[in-house]
Amino acid sequence: MNTISVKRPSFSGVARIKTIVIAGGAGFVGSHLCERFINQGHRVVCVDNLQTGSRDNIASLLAHHDFRFVLHDVTAPLALDGPVHEIYNMACTASPPRYQLDPIHTFRTCTDGAMNLLNLARDKGAKVLLSSTSEVYGDPEISLQHEGYRGNVNTCGPRACYDEGKRAAETLFWEYGAHLGVQTRIARIFNTYGPRMHPDDGRVVSNFIVQALRGQDLTIYGNGSQTRSFCYIDDLVDGLIALMASDEKMPVNLGNPDEFTMLELARKVLDKTGASVGLINQPLPQDDPRQRRPDISRAAELLGWAPKVALDQGLDLTIRWFWSVLNAQSVEARVS
Amino acid sequence: MNTISVKRPSFSGVARIKTIVIAGGAGFVGSHLCERFINQGHRVVCVDNLQTGSRDNIASLLAHHDFRFVLHDVTAPLALDGPVHEIYNMACTASPPRYQLDPIHTFRTCTDGAMNLLNLARDKGAKVLLSSTSEVYGDPEISLQHEGYRGNVNTCGPRACYDEGKRAAETLFWEYGAHLGVQTRIARIFNTYGPRMHPDDGRVVSNFIVQALRGQDLTIYGNGSQTRSFCYIDDLVDGLIALMASDEKMPVNLGNPDEFTMLELARKVLDKTGASVGLINQPLPQDDPRQRRPDISRAAELLGWAPKVALDQGLDLTIRWFWSVLNAQSVEARVS
Repeated sequence: MNTISVKRPSFSGVARIKTIVIAGGAGFVGSHLCERFINQGHRVVCVDNLQTGSRDNIASLLAHHDFRFVLHDVTAPLALDGPVHEIYNMACTASPPRYQLDPIHTFRTCTDGAMNLLNLARDKGAKVLLSSTSEVYGDPEISLQHEGYRGNVNTCGPRACYDEGKRAAETLFWEYGAHLGVQTRIARIFNTYGPRMHPDDGRVVSNFIVQALRGQDLTIYGNGSQTRSFCYIDDLVDGLIALMASDEKMPVNLGNPDEFTMLELARKVLDKTGASVGLINQPLPQDDPRQRRPDISRAAELLGWAPKVALDQGLDLTIRWFWSVLNAQSVEARVS
Repeated sequence: MNTISVKRPSFSGVARIKTIVIAGGAGFVGSHLCERFINQGHRVVCVDNLQTGSRDNIASLLAHHDFRFVLHDVTAPLALDGPVHEIYNMACTASPPRYQLDPIHTFRTCTDGAMNLLNLARDKGAKVLLSSTSEVYGDPEISLQHEGYRGNVNTCGPRACYDEGKRAAETLFWEYGAHLGVQTRIARIFNTYGPRMHPDDGRVVSNFIVQALRGQDLTIYGNGSQTRSFCYIDDLVDGLIALMASDEKMPVNLGNPDEFTMLELARKVLDKTGASVGLINQPLPQDDPRQRRPDISRAAELLGWAPKVALDQGLDLTIRWFWSVLNAQSVEARVS
């Protein structure tokens, strides 16, 4: 459990404490935002339906007097008392096997969720940030994806409920920003990893680490030459906060442009965990992107932001966290 | 006013009368579908909010005993008594200046409208067809657009409320078809023209004809070299009915691949109307597609469909219709 130090933020000597709503606040990225803002002395309203988010992720915050948890599904309108200054819309799992379990709900989380949080922002005069995704680029035909690239998304396929849902959410954010005077922000988040990823999330970093720590062979989809870039969670949180603080309404990529093949990542995980396991191959899933790498020049220019944590360092931190989680699980299993 | 002849359709000697719901049935395409089905002896339920559709378009049908008009906005769930066999979702104007008047409603017409009609289809065991659009290809980078092309759509621009709304609607149709057992159809409709286009629709065929008949200069956006292909309404209606009768759930292009530049079209309209007016240039609107031309090989293969009406013939019919409408308007103006 993390210790929370309350440091009220100070601007020109005057503390400005904000009320910040984090939709999806019990999820991987959302819970890190909650923790960061509580540590900065802000009031946090964490809204989550706990479909994929977990109370464990916010366990250290639940008792804090500035932290409030609201069990709510953002597909329904959200009413909150009192002022709200900022809203982070982090709702909707980014894990394909999980969002494909109920694709219509996934889609509605993206679209109705966006609309409900935009309406809350409009009613409260709050700023509102959308966690969009590199998935809006689909299976990109260009090796470095800039925000002007319009993507290569299949509207009629197993990833569409999420990809098209997020594209549609961007459109809603753009409309509210351009025509309804709402202070909107759109972050296109690329692959992110770190503590609090779900062990069964189904994405490559957690898959590899969990398999290695469990002594299982690492699953490589396709021939393993497809590439991804991985951003450590703390870097992403810095980027999201910098984007909210800016006045940029058009989409901004947030991610780490260092690119690795799946085989390179697998070798790193095997080296670091010391696992003596092999690799097994599985067919590439339909519509799986062959490459993903953010052009972050807009983020650098507009926000002065760039990721700082190298993959080796971030993997060490993540492996350590997974090790403690899996250890605790196996202790629980032995005790019960 | 058209005379309606009731010819009950016959299959293997047995008449099979269907109840067919046409959402957007008082619009340009929808009203032609209504008329066709009434002429074939079916029961038609025309659902329209009359936002851009018009009672004039269905004036000849309103008194027919097999025709029922329901004033309803498809963004709200639709409950209908009795059996329904087929649903055509033609709701949402395709005219940019009109759909941009209330972009959030446009978006919701596409997405909530799709969901509500899909739910009606599921509840009734009906087949349901989405009028999607070539706009899902955005500003295409390939000269002949096939259904596998994933498009070039800007999620954050003035056309996005319609383009991304329709992409999202396709995803909903795909999901209901793939996972919920609904008999879904997706027609990607390219530029269509003919009688009952609104004189102020803002699209190029109606713009040119109305300007020519009013003795005004024809407005050319950009340099007039951008191309479009134009499908006559009767051909489109044939294609939609053939698609509904098929069992194809993936998107099918419906359009006429004969391609013309805006300048070529302008010259044809000037020739046919005999208008002695000139051309005036205006800047190209943002995100205006430079080219649009359907690859209709899937429609040919799956439906045995191809358009039959050449542009010269269709323009003659359309000009005659606009001439009578504008004449009637000017008579009304003189009388009132």
